[in-house]
Amino acid sequence: MTQVRVSITRKDGLSDPEGVATRRALLDLGYDVGEVHFGRIINLEVDDTDEASVRAAVTAMCERLLANPVIEDYSIEVLS
Amino acid sequence: MTQVRVSITRKDGLSDPEGVATRRALLDLGYDVGEVHFGRIINLEVDDTDEASVRAAVTAMCERLLANPVIEDYSIEVLS
Repeated sequence: MTQVRVSITRKDGLSDPEGVATRRALLDLGYDVGEVHFGRIINLEVDDTDEASVRAAVTAMCERLLANPVIEDYSIEVLS
Repeated sequence: MTQVRVSITRKDGLSDPEGVATRRALLDLGYDVGEVHFGRIINLEVDDTDEASVRAAVTAMCERLLANPVIEDYSIEVLS
């Protein structure tokens, strides 16, 4: 099993209402923050040990199921 | 401004229904995956350039607002 971390964020230019609301709340608490952007992490185990084929499989999973390529960018880190 | 990435995941042992449902869907599509766990990313800009004080401020933000320390673990990466 290979551990993989997929990070999914909204594409630049799309509004991020969770980020805007969280920034507002942090400013209200006195923290001096700039832009805040939310995303998702998906940690998964893939039953394969070849890094290139793990990366290819997870890219396919992202395109088919895990991400929405119309509005989201994703990055894949092969951890072990 | 310093860029910071906060990764928030559920504590071990808590059930993760999104992960379970996604694993089931990936298996149905023919991908051989083990455990799948969901989490959140929060990318934020902090108006401070000292890494130690940025880290202290973001830890406080996590404890007060960004994470739920009862059920979640968080990690902080200072990116630039």
